[in-house]
Amino acid sequence: MKKRWLSLFVENEIGVLAKISGLFSGKSYNLNSLTVGPTEDETISRMTISLFSDDQKFEQIKKQLNRSVEVIKVIDYTDIPIHAKEIMFVKVMNCSEDDKTELFRFAQVFVIKIIDFNKTTVLLEIVQTENKNNEFIRLLNKNFSNRLEIIRGGSVAVEAV
Amino acid sequence: MKKRWLSLFVENEIGVLAKISGLFSGKSYNLNSLTVGPTEDETISRMTISLFSDDQKFEQIKKQLNRSVEVIKVIDYTDIPIHAKEIMFVKVMNCSEDDKTELFRFAQVFVIKIIDFNKTTVLLEIVQTENKNNEFIRLLNKNFSNRLEIIRGGSVAVEAV
Repeated sequence: MKKRWLSLFVENEIGVLAKISGLFSGKSYNLNSLTVGPTEDETISRMTISLFSDDQKFEQIKKQLNRSVEVIKVIDYTDIPIHAKEIMFVKVMNCSEDDKTELFRFAQVFVIKIIDFNKTTVLLEIVQTENKNNEFIRLLNKNFSNRLEIIRGGSVAVEAV
Repeated sequence: MKKRWLSLFVENEIGVLAKISGLFSGKSYNLNSLTVGPTEDETISRMTISLFSDDQKFEQIKKQLNRSVEVIKVIDYTDIPIHAKEIMFVKVMNCSEDDKTELFRFAQVFVIKIIDFNKTTVLLEIVQTENKNNEFIRLLNKNFSNRLEIIRGGSVAVEAV
């Protein structure tokens, strides 16, 4: 089992997201993340998919995707240099003054932004790799366990130049 | 027709993404964007969905989502203060030296990062609202039309504090 990355060019049509995600769930392939957005060509969308899979299953997935009429092109990003980032919002609740001081220190040391706060709540925006986001959650859990609301958007990837 | 925002708490299970996106495409509701990611509770995922819809259709959609067994909670973000951001990668190709100078100037003036470049290609990372990302594409199209590769991840939203 290894982490795999796929970048898909797909038709920008109603139902394509349901079709592609259904193709994975129909085979019980567990997607780690999927993001989708428009491209410079309004008839085409671009998807970034990450999943954990062995070689054999992964080859099957790529074949199936290539056979789908909605899929224009499949690029395997697994073993090539890419840039991948994920947006994560973390709301920390029931904060004391000391908690807030601590969180504002985090924002000075790590690449995170405090985008909102009030008397008892602080809202963080982090744009990092999935792994760094996971690490940051572990770090926050040490001090702010059970007081976190986490919203993550999934990884978006592009080939390095 | 108005732009709507929904935040969904859903079961973190295989097939839920296909089910939810299928619910929209089955009714020919055109999703503007959908993002999904894990939360602080590993059994629950959180989705951000944006779409253009009139009042009546939108009420139907919310009812249908609330009736789905995989959906734990539906929050309508349309008329409440939210923070929403989208990751966008833009690769500008066939760059001259002057083009590169221009792009590095963009990076000093706008909230964008140059994360990679070589002799003829520059890779930009922009984390902004969807509207600002659209504006930036229009700006780039003036000078770099037909030389752009755009990968967008869709908006992730969180309630303001």
